[in-house]
Amino acid sequence: MKTVGLIVEYNPFHNGHYYHIEAAKEATNADAVVCVMSGYFLQRGEPALLPRRNRTMMALQGGADLVVELPYIFSSQHASWFAQGAISILDHLGVDTICFGSEHGEITPFLKLVDFLETQNQPYNEYIKAFSKQGYSYPKAASLAFSKLEPDKDWPDLSQPNNILGYHYIRAVNDLNSSMTPATIKRAKAHYHDQQLSGYSIASATSIRRSLIEQHQSPDSIREAVPFSTYQSLSHFFKYEGSFYNWEQYFEFLQSKTLTLSSAFLSEIYEAEEGLHHRFQSMIKTHTTFHSFMEALKTKRYTWTRLQRFAVQVLTGTLKSEATEAIQSKHADHIRILGMNQTGQAYLNLIKKHMELPVFSTLPKHKTPQQQLDEKAAMAYYIPLTPEDRKIKWKQEYEQPPIILD
Amino acid sequence: MKTVGLIVEYNPFHNGHYYHIEAAKEATNADAVVCVMSGYFLQRGEPALLPRRNRTMMALQGGADLVVELPYIFSSQHASWFAQGAISILDHLGVDTICFGSEHGEITPFLKLVDFLETQNQPYNEYIKAFSKQGYSYPKAASLAFSKLEPDKDWPDLSQPNNILGYHYIRAVNDLNSSMTPATIKRAKAHYHDQQLSGYSIASATSIRRSLIEQHQSPDSIREAVPFSTYQSLSHFFKYEGSFYNWEQYFEFLQSKTLTLSSAFLSEIYEAEEGLHHRFQSMIKTHTTFHSFMEALKTKRYTWTRLQRFAVQVLTGTLKSEATEAIQSKHADHIRILGMNQTGQAYLNLIKKHMELPVFSTLPKHKTPQQQLDEKAAMAYYIPLTPEDRKIKWKQEYEQPPIILD
Repeated sequence: MKTVGLIVEYNPFHNGHYYHIEAAKEATNADAVVCVMSGYFLQRGEPALLPRRNRTMMALQGGADLVVELPYIFSSQHASWFAQGAISILDHLGVDTICFGSEHGEITPFLKLVDFLETQNQPYNEYIKAFSKQGYSYPKAASLAFSKLEPDKDWPDLSQPNNILGYHYIRAVNDLNSSMTPATIKRAKAHYHDQQLSGYSIASATSIRRSLIEQHQSPDSIREAVPFSTYQSLSHFFKYEGSFYNWEQYFEFLQSKTLTLSSAFLSEIYEAEEGLHHRFQSMIKTHTTFHSFMEALKTKRYTWTRLQRFAVQVLTGTLKSEATEAIQSKHADHIRILGMNQTGQAYLNLIKKHMELPVFSTLPKHKTPQQQLDEKAAMAYYIPLTPEDRKIKWKQEYEQPPIILD
Repeated sequence: MKTVGLIVEYNPFHNGHYYHIEAAKEATNADAVVCVMSGYFLQRGEPALLPRRNRTMMALQGGADLVVELPYIFSSQHASWFAQGAISILDHLGVDTICFGSEHGEITPFLKLVDFLETQNQPYNEYIKAFSKQGYSYPKAASLAFSKLEPDKDWPDLSQPNNILGYHYIRAVNDLNSSMTPATIKRAKAHYHDQQLSGYSIASATSIRRSLIEQHQSPDSIREAVPFSTYQSLSHFFKYEGSFYNWEQYFEFLQSKTLTLSSAFLSEIYEAEEGLHHRFQSMIKTHTTFHSFMEALKTKRYTWTRLQRFAVQVLTGTLKSEATEAIQSKHADHIRILGMNQTGQAYLNLIKKHMELPVFSTLPKHKTPQQQLDEKAAMAYYIPLTPEDRKIKWKQEYEQPPIILD
């Protein structure tokens, strides 16, 4: 059984994702699509619009055959750790090809670029250090350093978000000595940072989220940009919950924690560093929205994403010591199955006996270090609900089996 | 200028308090009444019904001349620390007499009892230890130990809450070598633990709170039990705020903190002990109200008050190390003036130049260890408000001058 692996957030699942699944299957001649999906908090340091389970259903309805979770410790991380965690899971699941979407769209230049940067590792890092010292954020410093190395103009542009991720996926494949073949597909039409809905049938997840959250619109506003099954799921969710999960709902909890924890303790939170947690503590009490707080915090050095990721770590109470313990092995310490169809189930049965990692469908009593953080992330994610709903959602973490789509 | 000192919570100020002020002035022939009042969190481990400022106003309208704050670290504490902090402040303010209400009502038997227990310190503590080992809570063990010592039947009964406090006040006066004279007044009519409003004009604060919070009644229901000025304040507050501060409003914040802090960190919270914080973490996710959570936690060993006090420490994020630093001197490290009338102002001017402690009317930039905890308590107290109201209240902590009643 030939498989292709995708690394996804589906926040929410849209036409571009549907196209990606179709194209990846075709390009790799795969019988099954295996998705490793972030759970509750995402790479840019945001809560997912909808719970993991709703997004798993969208994925299965959109063509995925097996969906497993990317543990929290990898999901709200900079690209290299995010990639490392996700690739390790696809590798453990015996996936043949990892196929990522990129702005560039050709795999050979990616492979050349990775090789090049491995030989240029020392000057590259020195340039990054030098630009960081000038006060640039890490992504910006990396991008400037890269151009200093005078790259081939056919290589992927590492200032593009999906090219960066792709670069890290390939590096992780190499680091893990994985036998997976990397492949890429050119992202269709919309660019990641597009902020207005394109009006075409393919829009970026960012512009979709903007419609749903900042503009408080119903899913009718993005109907053309998502598969009908996603539209139905979003409409149902919107009708019963009234809004999608977003940072503003967590702001009071972030304030509560930031203002009542000692600064010595805040400094022990993962991703804290001197200037950052002090700024958090001194500035958070004069803001009434998460958005205005972030705007005020943002500097050349601290990007919005960097700040949001730290805020997520505060919200979930993730300590440096816990993070270090959870990622010291550099790969996932368990596999959590979120959902599958019959093809996915057949594939899982095929590989199950050879798998080296423990496989779970719920949170167990005795947890791995990564599961301990997954548990805290789930607790934190559902905190804005009413007491009754919160209790139910928390309970389901330990009890609800994966989705099986017939 | 002759002064009498009272140690109060005024949660809320009622007819019994009014009577206490009047009687204390008369009994001690005092020209001025100095009250040391708990701020936002009270001795039984509860948020105050109304903010400090509203309760200060009630106190001034009810006959107090000068109101100062009992710092947080003493206000949500067992009786001995509560007494130590409060007495140290009255002593620093040069108060002549400390006059407390008690179930017993005569001062000489109190003084004899304190002397007796000082000579019997060793067997008393051994009995307490033995009863504690049998699983009794500290107050119960202390009460059983006391009866083992065969006390004189004319002495105050130490199973009565106000007798216990009185006993600790006198001990603190002795410990601090204070020149204050202890005096007591028999509490009028209502007993502290009364749960139904008496229908008479004197009801306990507990029964008043029960009407206002658990029975969600408007202040009209307790109109006969409080002075008219209190009734007006409560009605105004109820009309604009919709409800009085109570534990249920904080439950989601308690859940958020308890479930996302590591158990190693929770064990560093003041008043945490092995069995207790583990029970908190494992049980809090299955409850939808603070009340049901407390009911489920309660054991012979852990009284409701003990549990609530720990919950307050979690909510305010008070660490053992911070508490130790803040109370190591065994007395207040500053005086915060909350309000005064002209008599109080005259008295303050009289003593100001002799005072050894720094006097504040707002939270300063550089804080004493006790003020650091006061700040966190204020942050925690206002967290259930709307973002806008919360911001205003937090800001006032640093800016709002004391109340001056003409």
